[in-house]
Amino acid sequence: MFIILDSFCSKQREILQNYMCGDRVFKQILGEIEEELLVLEDDLRAVVDTKIRLIKKPLENMINSGGKRLRPAMVLAAARFGEYDFENIRSLAVSVELIHTATLIHDDIIDDSPLRRGIASIQSQLGKDVAVFAGDYLFCKAFELLASSDHFNMLRSVSKAMYQICEGELKQREDIFNTDLTFKEYLYRIRRKTAILFALSSEIGARASKAPTNTVRALHNYGINTGIAFQIADDLLDFISEDKKLGKPAGADIREGVITLPAIYALKYSEHREHLKHILSNRNINEDEINEAIEIIKKSGGIKYSESMAKRYVQKALNSIETLPEIPIKKVLMNISSFVINRSM
Amino acid sequence: MFIILDSFCSKQREILQNYMCGDRVFKQILGEIEEELLVLEDDLRAVVDTKIRLIKKPLENMINSGGKRLRPAMVLAAARFGEYDFENIRSLAVSVELIHTATLIHDDIIDDSPLRRGIASIQSQLGKDVAVFAGDYLFCKAFELLASSDHFNMLRSVSKAMYQICEGELKQREDIFNTDLTFKEYLYRIRRKTAILFALSSEIGARASKAPTNTVRALHNYGINTGIAFQIADDLLDFISEDKKLGKPAGADIREGVITLPAIYALKYSEHREHLKHILSNRNINEDEINEAIEIIKKSGGIKYSESMAKRYVQKALNSIETLPEIPIKKVLMNISSFVINRSM
Repeated sequence: MFIILDSFCSKQREILQNYMCGDRVFKQILGEIEEELLVLEDDLRAVVDTKIRLIKKPLENMINSGGKRLRPAMVLAAARFGEYDFENIRSLAVSVELIHTATLIHDDIIDDSPLRRGIASIQSQLGKDVAVFAGDYLFCKAFELLASSDHFNMLRSVSKAMYQICEGELKQREDIFNTDLTFKEYLYRIRRKTAILFALSSEIGARASKAPTNTVRALHNYGINTGIAFQIADDLLDFISEDKKLGKPAGADIREGVITLPAIYALKYSEHREHLKHILSNRNINEDEINEAIEIIKKSGGIKYSESMAKRYVQKALNSIETLPEIPIKKVLMNISSFVINRSM
Repeated sequence: MFIILDSFCSKQREILQNYMCGDRVFKQILGEIEEELLVLEDDLRAVVDTKIRLIKKPLENMINSGGKRLRPAMVLAAARFGEYDFENIRSLAVSVELIHTATLIHDDIIDDSPLRRGIASIQSQLGKDVAVFAGDYLFCKAFELLASSDHFNMLRSVSKAMYQICEGELKQREDIFNTDLTFKEYLYRIRRKTAILFALSSEIGARASKAPTNTVRALHNYGINTGIAFQIADDLLDFISEDKKLGKPAGADIREGVITLPAIYALKYSEHREHLKHILSNRNINEDEINEAIEIIKKSGGIKYSESMAKRYVQKALNSIETLPEIPIKKVLMNISSFVINRSM
């Protein structure tokens, strides 16, 4: 448990302390969120306390293996722009993390991932078949939690967000080995696949605490832009060597035919773009070719371009909440936005 | 579309006409349900009208390839015990069919099924990975439909039912090749995997039309018992030759290690039970061994026993609604119950 919070808080703290050294109110807010996240850990563990032995341990391991709890933290933070009541938003914060975890489990089936958060993924431990229903189980638990809470009126937003996430995942699958992918198409995909859940988290946190409509809209936009920045940065990790990547194999996207922003850039501007196109559309790519592709992409400036795009979306996120009241939590949100791209840069 | 309704209605009609020949009111009710089911076909097609090309056609094919629409028919039928209003329950009826279809798609991943309703399953057409999110997409659409309707208060029941279905599917996976499986464990599994959705369908139909509490409870029990009968009968299909089975390969359960009622009976009472145990626990079973197992099970009386159990649950379903008012739709429900076991007997 402490490891989880440490992974969230120590990194968060490091950034925050650099940024806000000595601000007592700010530290107090961060401490509050830390305590509340601890309570949510218990809630998450209660959800996976199922009688089904087959998934009990793997789900427990998955919950306990970390994750930065960024989405619940966003719910907690956004709610502070209204009439803040932790008990009122607790189930919302747990639900978004459950949906996120379920998506990761199903995502690993798509990606054939052997690892997740540095431990064996559920699909590699128990097979794709079990992973399907383990993910479904968490989805259903998230819905049950919402349906049993006072947040009926959030269910429409949550279910809409969920099918948009599915659309994003399917769009990614539809586009594999498509070397003609445009930036616009990439953006459509990562917006759905990733950003929608960040937007939902901050939006429902604000709505549940009766924040003004303009604030809800601002926080929704903040979530979208932070999510896009997060995914661009996450896709960059595929170009960084394995040891820095917390258990995800390098070059996995290229191997799976998932074309991301650095590749899109290189496919347009590299002097070796025709050769790169040939490599990236090869469904039987070998290790040497993967390394060659990575080299071409790096030399093209695709990494630097993607880094600048991620930063641009962080800036857009910050702009989204510019007009919100200057309460201490605003700085936490600003730092979360900066934090999400710091993993790869 | 007409083929779908034909598959529901012609078989239904045949049974019903034998049972109720000449009853004008009864025929009128059946005609009404038929027309309403036609409207639901349009609703179902609207749901799968997605921009995601990858799944659009496969989902359309799946929706159009039939299915008996038993669950929506149960919603429509049960609702007639209250203040009947088709528009009020339309989204409920569509939702249960979407949940059912999503479960089938995910179920085929578990079972590695090449066929579904006589056409290639989504997982065999597009891979397990696409099938995961195609199923998720339908789940989410079902939730979105409910969350956007006036039936917020049904969402708790729906989400609880959904995670129980997951529990059933996972229990089945947990129990593969377990030749010590008891009847009680089998019942726990099929109750969750199948019967819960029948119970939900009739329960929410009745609740949405404000039927009295006793009626809601009776219809819930009717659904559970009909569902158990349905699954016992469905499991019996695995012992019947392929041509009678509408596109599902014979012996598939045995090959996959799924122990069903006829096998449970034979493993307890057959004189060859030790040999059967040996065959059924073999993860590399061949065709000859499958046929041998089927023969031992048939000779043990396991098929006849299962048939009698299915009939017993049909009787329990009929008993459940015995005290309900004698309105024409009651006979439709009675006939649906008999119909579900007629596919294998």
